[in-house]
Amino acid sequence: MIDVSPLNWTELDRRAVDTVRVLAADAVEEVGSGHPGTAMSLAPAAYLLYQKVMNLDPADDQWLGRDRFVLSAGHSSLTQYIQLYLAGIELELEDIKALRTWGSKTPGHPEYRHSQGVEITTGPLGQGLASAVGMAYAARKERGLLDPDAAAGTSPFDHFIYAIASDGDLQEGVTSEASSLAGLQELGNLIVIWDDNKISIEDDTNIAFTEDVLQRYQAYGWHTESVDFTHGGTEYREDVDALYAAIAAAKAETGKPTLIRLRTIIGWPAPTKQNTGAIHGSAIGAEELAATKKVLGFDPEKHFEVSDEVIEHTRAQVRERAAQRRQAWDSDYDAWRTANPEGAALLDRLRERALPQGWTDSLPSFEEGKEVSTRKASGSVLTALADTLPELWGGSADLAGSNNTTMDGQPSFLPVARSSKKFPGDPYGRTLHFGIREHAMASILNGIVLHGLTRPYGGTFLTFSDYMRAGVRLAALMGAPSTFVWTHDSIGLGEDGPTHQPVEHLTALRAIPGLDVVRPADAAETVYAWQGIIERTDRPAGIILTRQNVPNPARGDGAASGSTLASAAGTLRGAYVLAEAAELQDGLPQVVLLATGSEVQLALEAREVLAAEGIGARVVSVPSQEWFDEQEAEYREQVLPAAVRARVSVEAGIAMSWRHLIGDAGRSISLEHYGASADYQTLYEKFGITTDAVVAAAKDSL
Amino acid sequence: MIDVSPLNWTELDRRAVDTVRVLAADAVEEVGSGHPGTAMSLAPAAYLLYQKVMNLDPADDQWLGRDRFVLSAGHSSLTQYIQLYLAGIELELEDIKALRTWGSKTPGHPEYRHSQGVEITTGPLGQGLASAVGMAYAARKERGLLDPDAAAGTSPFDHFIYAIASDGDLQEGVTSEASSLAGLQELGNLIVIWDDNKISIEDDTNIAFTEDVLQRYQAYGWHTESVDFTHGGTEYREDVDALYAAIAAAKAETGKPTLIRLRTIIGWPAPTKQNTGAIHGSAIGAEELAATKKVLGFDPEKHFEVSDEVIEHTRAQVRERAAQRRQAWDSDYDAWRTANPEGAALLDRLRERALPQGWTDSLPSFEEGKEVSTRKASGSVLTALADTLPELWGGSADLAGSNNTTMDGQPSFLPVARSSKKFPGDPYGRTLHFGIREHAMASILNGIVLHGLTRPYGGTFLTFSDYMRAGVRLAALMGAPSTFVWTHDSIGLGEDGPTHQPVEHLTALRAIPGLDVVRPADAAETVYAWQGIIERTDRPAGIILTRQNVPNPARGDGAASGSTLASAAGTLRGAYVLAEAAELQDGLPQVVLLATGSEVQLALEAREVLAAEGIGARVVSVPSQEWFDEQEAEYREQVLPAAVRARVSVEAGIAMSWRHLIGDAGRSISLEHYGASADYQTLYEKFGITTDAVVAAAKDSL
Repeated sequence: MIDVSPLNWTELDRRAVDTVRVLAADAVEEVGSGHPGTAMSLAPAAYLLYQKVMNLDPADDQWLGRDRFVLSAGHSSLTQYIQLYLAGIELELEDIKALRTWGSKTPGHPEYRHSQGVEITTGPLGQGLASAVGMAYAARKERGLLDPDAAAGTSPFDHFIYAIASDGDLQEGVTSEASSLAGLQELGNLIVIWDDNKISIEDDTNIAFTEDVLQRYQAYGWHTESVDFTHGGTEYREDVDALYAAIAAAKAETGKPTLIRLRTIIGWPAPTKQNTGAIHGSAIGAEELAATKKVLGFDPEKHFEVSDEVIEHTRAQVRERAAQRRQAWDSDYDAWRTANPEGAALLDRLRERALPQGWTDSLPSFEEGKEVSTRKASGSVLTALADTLPELWGGSADLAGSNNTTMDGQPSFLPVARSSKKFPGDPYGRTLHFGIREHAMASILNGIVLHGLTRPYGGTFLTFSDYMRAGVRLAALMGAPSTFVWTHDSIGLGEDGPTHQPVEHLTALRAIPGLDVVRPADAAETVYAWQGIIERTDRPAGIILTRQNVPNPARGDGAASGSTLASAAGTLRGAYVLAEAAELQDGLPQVVLLATGSEVQLALEAREVLAAEGIGARVVSVPSQEWFDEQEAEYREQVLPAAVRARVSVEAGIAMSWRHLIGDAGRSISLEHYGASADYQTLYEKFGITTDAVVAAAKDSL
Repeated sequence: MIDVSPLNWTELDRRAVDTVRVLAADAVEEVGSGHPGTAMSLAPAAYLLYQKVMNLDPADDQWLGRDRFVLSAGHSSLTQYIQLYLAGIELELEDIKALRTWGSKTPGHPEYRHSQGVEITTGPLGQGLASAVGMAYAARKERGLLDPDAAAGTSPFDHFIYAIASDGDLQEGVTSEASSLAGLQELGNLIVIWDDNKISIEDDTNIAFTEDVLQRYQAYGWHTESVDFTHGGTEYREDVDALYAAIAAAKAETGKPTLIRLRTIIGWPAPTKQNTGAIHGSAIGAEELAATKKVLGFDPEKHFEVSDEVIEHTRAQVRERAAQRRQAWDSDYDAWRTANPEGAALLDRLRERALPQGWTDSLPSFEEGKEVSTRKASGSVLTALADTLPELWGGSADLAGSNNTTMDGQPSFLPVARSSKKFPGDPYGRTLHFGIREHAMASILNGIVLHGLTRPYGGTFLTFSDYMRAGVRLAALMGAPSTFVWTHDSIGLGEDGPTHQPVEHLTALRAIPGLDVVRPADAAETVYAWQGIIERTDRPAGIILTRQNVPNPARGDGAASGSTLASAAGTLRGAYVLAEAAELQDGLPQVVLLATGSEVQLALEAREVLAAEGIGARVVSVPSQEWFDEQEAEYREQVLPAAVRARVSVEAGIAMSWRHLIGDAGRSISLEHYGASADYQTLYEKFGITTDAVVAAAKDSL
């Protein structure tokens, strides 16, 4: 599917590109805010990609064979919107006019699936490029799942990931991390155009960005190309042939990702504001707008002027290219389906993010009464699911053995030459190695998810979720089911001390709208935690796991009753009555103890002590507040009866996220300050997170 | 003060280095956890720095002329602890034995000022190196404040920043960001030794770290050196002369920071575990420990064996070098003080972080009744303080004009050649340009603060505090008074949409122990917010500011009374009664409206509406929950009387951090989901953050 036909760039194409510039300036002028400059100067590059390079089908925005486009420079959303309009992919001129207004299809930054053709939400700089690396991972992985034996470039699953990046994207650390991995992974399917315009919001980038970017990317193992529209400062001529040739060379380089430096002048050809920070993020003003139109041969009095000839040309061009490519691709694809009925069935399942019938039968169970850390239980779950869910894959930011994120016996996703003794590699392997790059891990996971077919996970210590936060938030905003495995979830990690002990993190993560935070109490809950995460396909989740061993107590098959603990299946509802009070009054306990993770054992012990004193304490295990919030009011009332105001939360972190569940009469056994370096038993004792403290708090709450 | 004397490396030095290795392995074995491998193989490098290179004074750990040492590879804390012990800087052998235990001076990772000689808390990878860049900034800046005209290398304020970095440090994006800035800033006073041991927790780094690091650093504009203890894999010989020569070359290169690649074998010379991930983060085991001691000629039966000869040698060596250097330095310093009485007075003030008498007289006031955004007011405060507080400096992550972080008329902190038309540069300038590198900004600010004399601030949009979070947390953990300027603090930023609109951030930041979150309501509160932040020198703060204009209403000089609003001085107490209820019952209002920032105006409007309906509503402005928490119970009760349970919080973000203040009867006008792209007035209306909503909630709460 690699198209290397010569570029046919007509006068009408040139006119269309100028139309893009005028539309961009008009749209920002209309709403009074936005980013015209880059949209103007990137017009030829974006037009080239959409009209002459990428495989897209305006009739099928979810075409499996499509190339992916990532506008990492998300502030320049018009760069994408106007191309979608010209290509006939959902957007119309009215949408361009409605830029950045309530309810429009054209928000300030591109938003994932808010309109067709937008493959990812971008705007926070660096995220797009880092996630584009993830998409390139995913393209290779999906090919490996479905068509591994096809020769390079011959599979219906072969395509390219194109990204446009700004100076800002290349300054952000997350792209450094991801780009280093892209080089190591030899991602020949990734092509990035860097808009080197030497202007950012603080104007001339000489004050903040003077490194040799191409040399840096060469150091990462990338192929680099350079195209200079300023021709060494002698004249501004948009040499689209040179850019097209650079893209062709990038496609031909199948063993390395490519960075194409494209030297532009921001805002060209606006007569006075080009090449200034002023045109980056503000309307250019009526006078400058009129002058720009004059330069381009447009009527300065007209706004949003698109000639019929131009729009007909661009839409027909995309339609015809799509038809050609679809014909070839559909035939390849049909042949593949016929030859690979099992692969086709798998593909159909993965496209819907459906799970195989009876998949939960593969889930493991754990010996009751035997202590095991929840991280270890989690690792057993992953290994147990390896055959059943081929779409599940992942790894760690250099903490594989600590996070228990490796499925036993699965090869690593690596070029063979990057193997190590411990981790044999395979380009289609399953274990991901992110190195010590937590932020890129989050963004790469997002890119893998958005690409479409698989479910990746990535692990680090909970405290380092701080490094990932911008990526985690984007997953939540997009509703992308990335899974974050966060182990070493409290002072329970012990001796590494306060830099490594999360204290505020559970609350800070619960604060992110749309993120499920799941902290199972024991091995049995860990199984259901994974089930609940895998079953939910419209949002990300973090699974929060202990380093230290915790009890895996004997449980009954149903609800809690007498001294019998409830089944761990209640995990799926976010919170459930794990142990009922020994004595009820009017059917109610006197006090409810709410706990998560390793602190559930303290609540269970406290229940016994309280029972001996004649106080009926119910223990509610709360692995996920978010899942509990989804339940019907009736169930919630059953678990947390409004009439029982005596409540205690028990969690080795700050109490902030518990106040709404425990109410004014409630008490919290929590940790409101940083931890310390010592064995964890000492820390729990010294910091007052003990059974005795829970008992005292329960009495105080009565 | 640049010492280029030839290296005198004796048999006793060799023995001392081997003692370090044995102590490191013993200490980890004793506690049963920790990181022996790097401490063993880095022993000669660390010893060289502490014993032969750095200017340190064991009798004065706060010596102004000392070189700074940053162990970016914080997990290898023994690398630093054992050198401090050998150098006679507070730690004794008992402290090494007490590694990682409760109450010891030797926690799992180095903690700032937990013991003498520890200049920074490290552990979260990348932070140390990024903050070392900040220290190098600070050294230049402080020289500029105090001794700008001295020739290079002749000032008592000239010294070096040394850092030891691991593979992990060089993979983290935050160091990429900071290193690019270090190159641009031509920080000749920064020398980093990279422990290139090709092993991380997942073993062979070939699976995750194959880039050409030196080429990357050259691209950043660094000088690089390479020293190979493996001699191309032919033999392991610790060529300390070559390392010393590389350090000398680094010192001689005054126009560039230096990265020295030091190829080592982790855990050398442990016979079976050297060069494996197994020796990175676990005790090496009794057998391997005994075998290692045999290799080194130590008695395998003895633990923590330090010969008198060794400890006497190392302590005397450091003492004598210190004495020599102090003599020279003290004489230079005295001469400087005599010649610069004003500088000396300034220095004395800065060392104590004291503020000049009457400094608040410089604070500006704002026209009452005139709308202004709090970001703009903040910019005016900074400009007004420029002359009074020379220690105050800062900038932005490429959002200077949006964050209002530039003091008018001050030059940029830049090599002159890095000037731009808009930002003239001066090596001793005041305005910082971080580029689009929020994370490095946080870590660099921390490094500047820790270096000692100045108070830096750095700005970006509030939503991008996510990128900075790991650095912000470290500031809080260290009690370092870095100031973060976070503007565009809500959906009030408008059209840029949900990627740029903070929703959960105020709560997520309040969750960080030890961080002050300050969100002033208007220009008048902004002045006091800065005052309160500057007066607190033992913790970091974030000041949270609006993009949009907000009213700056007329106020009285004291408490609220009748229709007169209280003075904004109440800001300093975190929360105060801004407007009293028109009618009180038994001296109490019927309902209390708590609000921050731009939402205070809604509370004030609601108070009027409620008054018209005969409901007495008090408005409490809560610029900082943390400052309010510090107040005495009596004041808190005055502001928020326990008897008034009808309360409403009003803040354009999630309500989580308000539950404890509003209680069960309280209501929250909040935003529990992501924003959207539209003008901010529409967003407030569509999302129900309106005066009417506050009124309705107040009634509901009654």
